Amino acid sequence: MDSSPTRQDPVIALLTDFGLSDTYVGQMKGVMLSICPKAKIIDLTHDVAPQNILQGMFFLERSIPFLPEKTIFVCIVDPGVGTERTPLAVITDRHIFIGPDNGILTPAIASEKPAHCIAITNGEFMLPKQSNTFHGRDIFSPAAAHLASGVSAEKLGRVIDPEKCVKLTLPVNHIENQGNSVTGQVLFADHFGNLVTSIKGDALDEKSAWNVKTETIQSIPLSTTYGAVADQEIVAYCGSYGVIEIGVRNGNAAYRTGLKAGDPVRVIKRKEAKKPYRQD
Amino acid sequence: MDSSPTRQDPVIALLTDFGLSDTYVGQMKGVMLSICPKAKIIDLTHDVAPQNILQGMFFLERSIPFLPEKTIFVCIVDPGVGTERTPLAVITDRHIFIGPDNGILTPAIASEKPAHCIAITNGEFMLPKQSNTFHGRDIFSPAAAHLASGVSAEKLGRVIDPEKCVKLTLPVNHIENQGNSVTGQVLFADHFGNLVTSIKGDALDEKSAWNVKTETIQSIPLSTTYGAVADQEIVAYCGSYGVIEIGVRNGNAAYRTGLKAGDPVRVIKRKEAKKPYRQD
Amino acid sequence: MDSSPTRQDPVIALLTDFGLSDTYVGQMKGVMLSICPKAKIIDLTHDVAPQNILQGMFFLERSIPFLPEKTIFVCIVDPGVGTERTPLAVITDRHIFIGPDNGILTPAIASEKPAHCIAITNGEFMLPKQSNTFHGRDIFSPAAAHLASGVSAEKLGRVIDPEKCVKLTLPVNHIENQGNSVTGQVLFADHFGNLVTSIKGDALDEKSAWNVKTETIQSIPLSTTYGAVADQEIVAYCGSYGVIEIGVRNGNAAYRTGLKAGDPVRVIKRKEAKKPYRQD
Repeated sequence: MDSSPTRQDPVIALLTDFGLSDTYVGQMKGVMLSICPKAKIIDLTHDVAPQNILQGMFFLERSIPFLPEKTIFVCIVDPGVGTERTPLAVITDRHIFIGPDNGILTPAIASEKPAHCIAITNGEFMLPKQSNTFHGRDIFSPAAAHLASGVSAEKLGRVIDPEKCVKLTLPVNHIENQGNSVTGQVLFADHFGNLVTSIKGDALDEKSAWNVKTETIQSIPLSTTYGAVADQEIVAYCGSYGVIEIGVRNGNAAYRTGLKAGDPVRVIKRKEAKKPYRQD
Repeated sequence: MDSSPTRQDPVIALLTDFGLSDTYVGQMKGVMLSICPKAKIIDLTHDVAPQNILQGMFFLERSIPFLPEKTIFVCIVDPGVGTERTPLAVITDRHIFIGPDNGILTPAIASEKPAHCIAITNGEFMLPKQSNTFHGRDIFSPAAAHLASGVSAEKLGRVIDPEKCVKLTLPVNHIENQGNSVTGQVLFADHFGNLVTSIKGDALDEKSAWNVKTETIQSIPLSTTYGAVADQEIVAYCGSYGVIEIGVRNGNAAYRTGLKAGDPVRVIKRKEAKKPYRQD
Repeated sequence: MDSSPTRQDPVIALLTDFGLSDTYVGQMKGVMLSICPKAKIIDLTHDVAPQNILQGMFFLERSIPFLPEKTIFVCIVDPGVGTERTPLAVITDRHIFIGPDNGILTPAIASEKPAHCIAITNGEFMLPKQSNTFHGRDIFSPAAAHLASGVSAEKLGRVIDPEKCVKLTLPVNHIENQGNSVTGQVLFADHFGNLVTSIKGDALDEKSAWNVKTETIQSIPLSTTYGAVADQEIVAYCGSYGVIEIGVRNGNAAYRTGLKAGDPVRVIKRKEAKKPYRQD
């Protein structure tokens, strides 16, 4: 792997709620390649639920570790487009992040210190004519492409205090009984219908000694993967986002359980790890 | 930005109604990279409504300005595949366009003069075996990739008269009352449920002094962006395609209003800009 | 076309059931570009029906001929992720294939002899921390990217006997009446609602002399393409996957006929080619 800057094309990773049924994402890629023909553009996803900044933030936070160093992330879930909210560039030691100042960039601002924040104000690095509805194409894409071409971030606008940027937090999990019980919630259902929750797997000291329970499913032991249960059975496990998920082997847990975003999920330490504790 | 041919890889932009649930688009990309390994292929969208040539044409027209110079557009909405319709290459000063001669390439033929049209007939630049159902893979992709590799367009077939190519027009807007009223129609709903109309924003001399009205929504003033109204309220604005759109802030206007493609939309100049005119 | 290794970037083609609504595919691309920045990654499709290994195998088999030589296929439909099933690399004269040993790689193992099979076991070429639910990101993507970077396949693990790898077969077609009648089945409906069947077009000696019949549609002659029938009429033809398909011109055959995966489809040779044989 040769990572010298002269050999490696800049990577731009897109994360939006624009979907793929329009030409929005295609136009953004066109703008970026017009400015930086060498850019390698990849899609993280464009199916964040419309206007769901929190889901965008979660996807970003969970994806950062898997992208190359120096990736320029363009993250746009932007219900306030065309209003006062600031277009932002956040520079960290490893990456650059572009997006509206509405909390979607929280993982960049909060987690990778020292973050350097720039309000994008310099029209020289925007499209000549900017719409009020599509800053993704007219402001954020040109900014990303100019940075990819080697323009220094300071030229995009003025430095602002990271403390003043909007930050969002995922739903707070309630820890009870000296850490023997954690109550979080369903964040969303993924493509397979697996229910992704707010409870981080790392937080459970010994994964095999916990049970998972919701309002519609009885207590089940935490497994290591789908294949640990029989076909069509409900299974809970630490999933690939690093959080507890509930699935159905070869099936769809969202349909089966009726659970949806916001519904509570409880993880309880078993008294004896070998003999699953039944709560009811 | 270095645009010298030796430095910049050719860009091919795809616009089809093939969807992404099959391997159709993937096979096209495979064919193109087999012929032109240096091609940079981007997707404008593959979700044109099945067989909707007019929507394909609209997406193309509205996207051209945002793609790099020399982009090769491959535009395929092709209900007549395998019949007499001609496979076409259109060369303009700035771009190349490939697709069936059914009107989808109208923006290339009509808008960017002088257009140079070639009927693609030379089997040497097609796949050795051509299906009757997938010229996107067997004829159009190889043509695009050979052009991207430097083959001159004349080699693909014979020059034809642009006047003889099929041209389509968007629904005609009715202008009444000395230009104080325009009646157009809904073209389609986008990914967010925003209703994209046939009425061009540029045609309205002073955006803030107009009202928008349909059969199911009362007259509302034209705003500059979504954020100009309260949460869940209906809002009309000049959108990122350059035409009037109707949305719902943080909501879905297609669901809310029940409006669909073909439904009339009226834009009326207010008598006094500051005091919105109520039609009913 | 210059295919010398120094000039041509390695192509990686992805085929999964991960969908595009999560960041799964984006994270895989991030991992691959971290290891092999020069990789050119294309998507065959990510919309294989969830856990449908057989559909994945069909898509792979039908797509191989259209991808460039030396393409590295990453094929992941993996209901057994995290269990005993072996991660596999299959090397043939023309391509490399990566995926779980569950039958999805059958076209590689069976069709392109001599196949060279490697069980991927060397942790050195995996992500440092592997989840139990997402080997696509943690094992298969790194393996593909290391191979793309020039690592030799033998380093990934131990050579295994191709005979011992899982192989799947498409539904067997029943040939009756001295080859004058073939009964196969619907495999799936494509994006347009066209019903893709298990009956290979090549197997029919003279395409124009056959009729197609199902439980819900009367016998119709095999046509060459959609345009051979009138608007909204049912049409049967040899489609772009090389198998018999049933469509509706400018319409959706899955909706119209009610046929679904597994339903029988019969192809019958007409007694006299010019005078269509009516079975009922």
